Amino acid sequence: MNAPAAPHHLAPDIKPRPAPAALLAALKRRFGAQFSEALAVREQHGRDESAFTTVPPPEAVVFAESTQDVRDLVRLCAEHRVPVIPYGVGSSLEGHLLAVQGGISLDLSRMNRVLSVNAEDLTVTVQPGVTRTQLNNEIKSTGLFFPIDPGADASLGGMAATRASGTNAVRYGTMRENVLALEVVTAQGEAIRTGTRARKSSAGYDLTRLFVGSEGTLGVITEITLRIYPLPEAVSAAVCSFPSIADAVNTVISTIQLGVPIARVELIDTHSVRAVNRHSKLSLREAPMLLMEFHGSPAGVKEQAETVQQLASDNHGADFEWADTPEERTRLWTARHNAFFAALQSRPGCRCITTDTCVPISRLADALLASVEEADASAIPYFLVGHVGDGNFHVGYLIDPADEDERARAEALNHRVVARALELGGTCTGEHGVGLHKQGFLLDEAGAGAVTMMRGIKQALDPDNILNPGKVFTQG
Amino acid sequence: MNAPAAPHHLAPDIKPRPAPAALLAALKRRFGAQFSEALAVREQHGRDESAFTTVPPPEAVVFAESTQDVRDLVRLCAEHRVPVIPYGVGSSLEGHLLAVQGGISLDLSRMNRVLSVNAEDLTVTVQPGVTRTQLNNEIKSTGLFFPIDPGADASLGGMAATRASGTNAVRYGTMRENVLALEVVTAQGEAIRTGTRARKSSAGYDLTRLFVGSEGTLGVITEITLRIYPLPEAVSAAVCSFPSIADAVNTVISTIQLGVPIARVELIDTHSVRAVNRHSKLSLREAPMLLMEFHGSPAGVKEQAETVQQLASDNHGADFEWADTPEERTRLWTARHNAFFAALQSRPGCRCITTDTCVPISRLADALLASVEEADASAIPYFLVGHVGDGNFHVGYLIDPADEDERARAEALNHRVVARALELGGTCTGEHGVGLHKQGFLLDEAGAGAVTMMRGIKQALDPDNILNPGKVFTQG
Repeated sequence: MNAPAAPHHLAPDIKPRPAPAALLAALKRRFGAQFSEALAVREQHGRDESAFTTVPPPEAVVFAESTQDVRDLVRLCAEHRVPVIPYGVGSSLEGHLLAVQGGISLDLSRMNRVLSVNAEDLTVTVQPGVTRTQLNNEIKSTGLFFPIDPGADASLGGMAATRASGTNAVRYGTMRENVLALEVVTAQGEAIRTGTRARKSSAGYDLTRLFVGSEGTLGVITEITLRIYPLPEAVSAAVCSFPSIADAVNTVISTIQLGVPIARVELIDTHSVRAVNRHSKLSLREAPMLLMEFHGSPAGVKEQAETVQQLASDNHGADFEWADTPEERTRLWTARHNAFFAALQSRPGCRCITTDTCVPISRLADALLASVEEADASAIPYFLVGHVGDGNFHVGYLIDPADEDERARAEALNHRVVARALELGGTCTGEHGVGLHKQGFLLDEAGAGAVTMMRGIKQALDPDNILNPGKVFTQG
Repeated sequence: MNAPAAPHHLAPDIKPRPAPAALLAALKRRFGAQFSEALAVREQHGRDESAFTTVPPPEAVVFAESTQDVRDLVRLCAEHRVPVIPYGVGSSLEGHLLAVQGGISLDLSRMNRVLSVNAEDLTVTVQPGVTRTQLNNEIKSTGLFFPIDPGADASLGGMAATRASGTNAVRYGTMRENVLALEVVTAQGEAIRTGTRARKSSAGYDLTRLFVGSEGTLGVITEITLRIYPLPEAVSAAVCSFPSIADAVNTVISTIQLGVPIARVELIDTHSVRAVNRHSKLSLREAPMLLMEFHGSPAGVKEQAETVQQLASDNHGADFEWADTPEERTRLWTARHNAFFAALQSRPGCRCITTDTCVPISRLADALLASVEEADASAIPYFLVGHVGDGNFHVGYLIDPADEDERARAEALNHRVVARALELGGTCTGEHGVGLHKQGFLLDEAGAGAVTMMRGIKQALDPDNILNPGKVFTQG
């Protein structure tokens, strides 16, 4: 790792490539009511949940309804070398959707059909605009479910593009492990297929995994085949409070090292519990807390739960409370999922700068506790949540977007969190992606040689740099 | 899928690119005793377990002992645009190691150190020449193990390069899921690192997964970080005979569809049982047979075994025999691992053309039974083994290499097996890779657009086409 000299990317580098009138006219002709230049629509598509607020919106928005629509849009934009920015539900935390080089936002939310459910093979094929909760509602009657759960009700296209994960990944893996096959529209406007419905393959380069996590820069995902799983026979959830974050983290480290196949294990700190209590009208004890879930046969779940309860007790855990009915569990996980918005509401008008490091499990306590100490010392309001079974945690610094000094101090904290994670053998982003915000960190983590290789691949696949340019790295 | 007109690649396309004397002299100077032009050494490095026997050997062999050696070799070859063919233990079944365009064989077997064991993180970092049994011997005292087991005692570099899997993959995944990070020497002779020791990451393009399965054509793997697992608390293995292959396959399909986390489930047909009995002096009932293994807690293993035993019984399974001691299990799995060589010995002087299709589990009976019927009708000696829990099976046609007619008929059978798998939503290769043999099949499976994209990536990373040229696809 190269020690970086200064916090990276306090502000995005804006280099508009204006769309010629001829392109806008051609898009209007081709897409009619699916095309919009209305300012409100453009503005809605020009922002996300990141802390960047000053980028001009895209020049127009096209609402694709088919792969053919996507192909035609990309071809028209390619003719004029104008950027195309794929858009799902706008839940990016890293500026993925921002039109830093101008261009057209490609809204895929109307491509929201579940195309086929192969229950007997545990696979499903969907369009990219299907969200994870929509998918789970549509397959509920089959006794199967799709586990990947990043918190937000993100589109599956967006989740594939950012290699998302979240709760459940500790047991079921991330989008990397759960995308079997894709249809992708290339920068040339061709549709290609990658992968098959077979569980494994050694047939050539792993283009599926190359597109998963490419953040819209190599192609537009227009179809996704996913693994799904039998709903576990038994599910049990629990919360447990701890006197300190260290105790909670040590419980998790032991759980993972023992190989307990826990399905979810989430850490939320006192700030998060307080915000969640206020937002969701709960009365959780305001102390560091683990939220856990166990999946399996009744005997298996009991075995896992007993093991973890013992580990928690060894680490001073108190108030092990069980949530065994679906209603109680839903209440618990809704509270967890609302943590981000609950925290935002705790400081009205704020924006959130979110860290996303992930470290080897044995280094989790080192990484996390030092980050908490620095955040405490900064006096910037913050909250902490973590998919700690994977070694992944988020510190959210709640900044006043108008206060440049506060932003810079929060970025400096973020910078220290990342530098520490890299020193410990971890990554700057466990699940949110690089986007605009972590380009310097990517360079620190991967090294110049690997980033040069990524640039070479981008250049080979998208020589005019029209697909979501300026994200992951800057080109040319 | 495009219906192919005729069996592909009955013979490899040989286009030698002779190494200039200046290169050979420079290699000799740089590598001294690590460099060999001896015919026996070259011949040993110019063949593998595939049915190709007529390709001239590489012009020389370099035994690398360090990443620096690999860098220097690649740089010298790059200067002269001479091919470099990475070599592990020579267990490829698809001609990966053959010098179809001449060049230098890069033997990595001396890079065989386990560099670090991070037991508390369940990771290990190895050099590419470490074999899977060596690794498991070296980490035995930690209570951890590396599950991927392709049968042959392959090198981990070779296993990464072909995206290998084998028994255990049904539970633990393939090399795709179990390689966390790599060091790779590029075609320019630079060493880059991909991935980290963190369990998940969204940091840029997934170069790790791009190199896994790239068959030595994009870079030379010089270091591998792998996931390892706690040895299961309880292990139980069993064999069960069935009156027909259909009954055995239907048992497996039900097992997978129920979500039973079985660790291994292998099918061997009557021909294989007979060969194994003779080779390993066993007295297994000469009927289609499943070999199974269950991993977990004692209660979990019992639960799984009871479920599968019931399913087997529903499908006319008989003689459910348990192997509960390590010695009994070793005897059983050694027999399975020897199936390939046992079958080869059943026809002295033969070579084996091996199919490797993998289909969605619900289509396994369709794919497998039709393939058996065609093989039976052909009168060519064959055997069948399968990692059937993944939908992956191998028909091995035992041909007389001098009999071109028999070879062509076996290739035609192979062709039908693949065409059927692709129609059923599967892949032409579950775990062996494309090599020389499946290039036409790759095109049928992935389509021209995807293969063109693969070629574009190869061109971007290795513009002079020096890394294992002529494998996966032909270039230029």
